Amino acid sequence: MADRVGMWKSLGMDVKAHDALCSMLPTAFGDVFLSQRNRPESMAFWDMVAADIHGMRPAELIEAQANGQKVFGAFCVYVPDEVILACDGIVTGLCGGSQFWVPAGEQMLPADVCPLIKASVGARISRTCPFFRIADLFVGETTCDGKKKAYEILAKDAPLYVMDTPQMKRQKDIDKWADEIRDFADEVQRVTGNQLTSENLAKAIKVTNDRRRALARVFEARKSRVAPISGADALLMMQISFFDDPVRCAEMCNRLADELERRIEQGVSAVPAGSKRILITGTPMAIPNWKLHHIVETCGAVVACEEMCTGTRSFENLVDETQTTLEGQFQALSQRYMKNNCACFTPNGGRIDDVIRLARTYQVDGVINANLTFCTTYKLEAPALERAVEEAGFPVLSIETGYSDGDSEQLRTRIGAFVEMLG
Amino acid sequence: MADRVGMWKSLGMDVKAHDALCSMLPTAFGDVFLSQRNRPESMAFWDMVAADIHGMRPAELIEAQANGQKVFGAFCVYVPDEVILACDGIVTGLCGGSQFWVPAGEQMLPADVCPLIKASVGARISRTCPFFRIADLFVGETTCDGKKKAYEILAKDAPLYVMDTPQMKRQKDIDKWADEIRDFADEVQRVTGNQLTSENLAKAIKVTNDRRRALARVFEARKSRVAPISGADALLMMQISFFDDPVRCAEMCNRLADELERRIEQGVSAVPAGSKRILITGTPMAIPNWKLHHIVETCGAVVACEEMCTGTRSFENLVDETQTTLEGQFQALSQRYMKNNCACFTPNGGRIDDVIRLARTYQVDGVINANLTFCTTYKLEAPALERAVEEAGFPVLSIETGYSDGDSEQLRTRIGAFVEMLG
Repeated sequence: MADRVGMWKSLGMDVKAHDALCSMLPTAFGDVFLSQRNRPESMAFWDMVAADIHGMRPAELIEAQANGQKVFGAFCVYVPDEVILACDGIVTGLCGGSQFWVPAGEQMLPADVCPLIKASVGARISRTCPFFRIADLFVGETTCDGKKKAYEILAKDAPLYVMDTPQMKRQKDIDKWADEIRDFADEVQRVTGNQLTSENLAKAIKVTNDRRRALARVFEARKSRVAPISGADALLMMQISFFDDPVRCAEMCNRLADELERRIEQGVSAVPAGSKRILITGTPMAIPNWKLHHIVETCGAVVACEEMCTGTRSFENLVDETQTTLEGQFQALSQRYMKNNCACFTPNGGRIDDVIRLARTYQVDGVINANLTFCTTYKLEAPALERAVEEAGFPVLSIETGYSDGDSEQLRTRIGAFVEMLG
Repeated sequence: MADRVGMWKSLGMDVKAHDALCSMLPTAFGDVFLSQRNRPESMAFWDMVAADIHGMRPAELIEAQANGQKVFGAFCVYVPDEVILACDGIVTGLCGGSQFWVPAGEQMLPADVCPLIKASVGARISRTCPFFRIADLFVGETTCDGKKKAYEILAKDAPLYVMDTPQMKRQKDIDKWADEIRDFADEVQRVTGNQLTSENLAKAIKVTNDRRRALARVFEARKSRVAPISGADALLMMQISFFDDPVRCAEMCNRLADELERRIEQGVSAVPAGSKRILITGTPMAIPNWKLHHIVETCGAVVACEEMCTGTRSFENLVDETQTTLEGQFQALSQRYMKNNCACFTPNGGRIDDVIRLARTYQVDGVINANLTFCTTYKLEAPALERAVEEAGFPVLSIETGYSDGDSEQLRTRIGAFVEMLG
């Protein structure tokens, strides 16, 4: 293995504190992933990436920067990767998914902010995540109060650009988002020094759509009652998709989908026969947040689908590939992104439709509505969502949890009872 | 007194529950207001309004409705009263300021939402506030996650229109707000059946500016070290300004300002000599939230200014009166409202400038930054604000509190120590 420690030091990381994080991950990963039986062989790729999560990809990014490329860090599936890729930029996810970063975040933020935001700020402040050191530009958005205001704090320590996400979904909001994408394109051109053209943007749209199509193929296989892959493995694949090169991501996902399709034909399941099928909807699960999937899948159930940003929202809906002008492409990008039914919008009835549609097509037995603690937008729309999903015939379990393991046994009791109750 | 109970019944109110609220208010009002010495005589008007808060003005509104006028309820100083007044509509405030409504709100909302939102929803749901029964249209806005999503819940029970407040303050955001005002004007015309013209809008702009000028005169008098009025009385006047007819409000405020100016000349103070002067900045204080002012002003200090929506933000900056076309007027309205430095914006450095400017012009000895519990936007910008204000030479006390009196003694201890420490 290359000199990871030297790399981390050169990034200005707190290597000692980082060692503590690194020492926890193998056990957690072993407990959640390596303990599983009948895994698809193709998961070896993601196991390898996860085992060297702060080494392999950061080294690639640093090498790309040495060759003149710029790295853009994003916190939200609303950031249009296409514009960055078109200008030969690289996109990496930045959301923090570990309790490890929460105490550092709480030095800058009140405790009653969602753990994803606290962990994201903490990962930067504590200098224990290479991605938060490497990114040339952090790209924020105004999706929720917590993130919007946390970016003001992050901006004092990191180069930050904020896109103003609409709060509603009228035509003028779609136009507004197209305009925000246009402004962002100016910034990306400035940072990369490369010009955006309809040609390179068309190519980037194609590459990003290809990744979406590949992710969709993996999810398509999850619709089968055979359950050829566990939810935890699918989640890991999804989480890493935010950090990986999009072409390699598509290639690996297609390879995995090939295997899953073979397994379906052959009736090879990743989970015990009779496992109840669960759809999880709610707030995103940033790596290494595998808490809920692990509990569900060691309670006699399998997670068949995630209606969340680290799930269907990252790949559903393609960008129109037929536009030939930048203006047409910005509008096409906006139209695609604005189909995303995040709780930051008002009203957000589309999410209810999505959950019911997905619950049916993924043939699930029950739905878990999982909100991160202190996530106001999701929490406030939870009762209406849960009522509608129950009326559509799906039992719903409502869960609010953070990153800490303190409530794991309580969750195990509740989830176990819920799974047992399912048809 | 007219038949208030009959009126409340005809509004579909829960009169029995409402009785419990009514029985609490006189004691609270007596403790906070009538116990004060050396009050301006002109406060008699607001004492009278407060004593019949759910009677007098509601009766006026009902009479106006009988004459064909429509009543619009607003939750935010961003809602442009001018457009409503121009179409012969009436504006009333709707924010809930009493702990009495919080439990009802918590039936529909999670506990970790700010008390103002919980009380506002609770006031509607519990049918114990006439203003929440009378309004023909509730006008919401997307200023914060809690309100934005609470409106979805309110909309199931009340006629609701939402304006999409910008999250940033670029020229395009000012244009966007002008466009939202234009859309809102369509809705107001639809609801009132009256046409908006540049003439009636010009008149409404003048009326609303006159109210702002009158409120500003009262606040101008508060800049004097004589302290001719207590902060509690000024706050009561401000709170009621959101419910009153704007012409009468201006008249009464000008009358009060006349008296305050005389008192300054004569050196007549409303507070004991040597009282420390305090500026309170932060989240709004909806009627009957007098908690903090009462504690501060029974701890040897006087509140000289409120940098909040129930304070300077409601009257600072006038709308340009020279525009003669609706388009020009919409833009002028937007420019004025967008000068309001609410924490919903990112970034919001203008608020820091405002607090320092007001602390100087109101000659205060210290600043209290008061956030309602669970108000994410204000809480997250608090550290930067407090640092800047302290660097400008003003001691700062940071307080987070709700509507309940449970922490009053603790607050009294902290505020007492703060006041004692001042210069």
